[in-house]
Amino acid sequence: MLIIGEKINTVREGIAWAVEKKDVETIQKEAINQVKAGVDVLDVNVGTPLKEAENMRWVVKVIQEVVNNPLCIDSPSPETIKAGFQVCRDKKRTWANSITLEKKRIEGLLPLVKKYNCPLIALCMDDKGIPPTARKRVEVARRIIKVVSDFDIPLDNLYIDCLVEPISVGQGKAQQSLVTIRMMKNTFPQIKTVVCLSAVSFGLPERRLINRTFLPLLIEARVDAIFLDPLDETLIATLKAANTLLDKDESCLDYISAYRKGKLKI
Amino acid sequence: MLIIGEKINTVREGIAWAVEKKDVETIQKEAINQVKAGVDVLDVNVGTPLKEAENMRWVVKVIQEVVNNPLCIDSPSPETIKAGFQVCRDKKRTWANSITLEKKRIEGLLPLVKKYNCPLIALCMDDKGIPPTARKRVEVARRIIKVVSDFDIPLDNLYIDCLVEPISVGQGKAQQSLVTIRMMKNTFPQIKTVVCLSAVSFGLPERRLINRTFLPLLIEARVDAIFLDPLDETLIATLKAANTLLDKDESCLDYISAYRKGKLKI
Repeated sequence: MLIIGEKINTVREGIAWAVEKKDVETIQKEAINQVKAGVDVLDVNVGTPLKEAENMRWVVKVIQEVVNNPLCIDSPSPETIKAGFQVCRDKKRTWANSITLEKKRIEGLLPLVKKYNCPLIALCMDDKGIPPTARKRVEVARRIIKVVSDFDIPLDNLYIDCLVEPISVGQGKAQQSLVTIRMMKNTFPQIKTVVCLSAVSFGLPERRLINRTFLPLLIEARVDAIFLDPLDETLIATLKAANTLLDKDESCLDYISAYRKGKLKI
Repeated sequence: MLIIGEKINTVREGIAWAVEKKDVETIQKEAINQVKAGVDVLDVNVGTPLKEAENMRWVVKVIQEVVNNPLCIDSPSPETIKAGFQVCRDKKRTWANSITLEKKRIEGLLPLVKKYNCPLIALCMDDKGIPPTARKRVEVARRIIKVVSDFDIPLDNLYIDCLVEPISVGQGKAQQSLVTIRMMKNTFPQIKTVVCLSAVSFGLPERRLINRTFLPLLIEARVDAIFLDPLDETLIATLKAANTLLDKDESCLDYISAYRKGKLKI
């Protein structure tokens, strides 16, 4: 399972300021810390439409000066994603995040994804918004898969975002995410799934407790990639414990090694 | 899901001493603290065969002076369990823990369970020991269910212990427990399941981290009762988060109330 670090996002005030003031050090520190914490991919989201493409180019350049991990260029705007890709060193390893079934996003982004044969995230939603049941999400995914497939993009590059929703908005939301992931994997074994962990705890106190309790359930449901906060040390300790419990860590070697290095912060 | 407090057990040195020295205060404090922490049932295990029945009677009497929760009389010896029951105030609510397919334990204990119509724990093992696969455990459970059923004991009083094994002894042990619980519930919807949480982490460092990471997985597998350490505050916080995530806490009310009372220790 891949970890996508979610920290470089202008919803965070410190990052918004750093982008506004072109504060290289803050951005690079966020990138380096996440890589040290063990992320596989770094998400990059520069927020508001105002100068979004220009800001994306700047942030991508700045991050690449200090880390080599793949970046995940995150925007609803295909133009911003293209801007990020323009300056990416290794376009084949860069993630395009994201499309929905919206025509403008599909037509704007699929040529780029095809050209670079890179990973693509598709949010499992259509014009009507987020489908209310796992079964309907699978049907939306079926339509996305057809579009991507008709465009001759290999399906093993496609990550369907199963759309974790906050448990605070209604009963059954966490279970629904787990059912959606399992149903998605069973129905379309060739595609991959991704979720944003922290969405589950929105609106509740002690969000990190909820997030870390949800993590082993997502791993057991066999999700392929998770957006999470790699600087939450207890979350990373939980991830290591979950990997050990769920046979993703042969002979518990990684777990014991993390313990010996003092990295199991609990 | 029921919580069975595991702290009154002479494998713990302090409890062994307290039983040896007839130290009422230590035993009563352990009982009261577990009840305050929210357990449903208190397990009582006085260990070695030497004076086991006598010690069991003493401990049960002492605990009943301060708490009203049901007790779970825990011994391989039917004689010790009978001794505990002799002095129990409410025999119908007292748990008999445990039988296996061993003839002596069955013949020794089933008459008592039938007489009092009380909960019974059966370890899912036969003369050959612990069955190596979930499917074989279900077959052993089938034989146990037949014996219990032939004795006219209602099956909704039967808790099958699915036998959690340490992940340190081999790949797949945690997954196997989860599969066993699910298979047991699907095959025999009328019986209940129980597990001992902390067995999973035996032999590894930071056992509490492993235990608390395993807990949400057990709850999602719909286990009916868990032996655990209710004085591990982070474990109890995780339990509350898992119940909220898995729809056992309507509108997150219990979770928010625990937060307000400062009980979410993380």
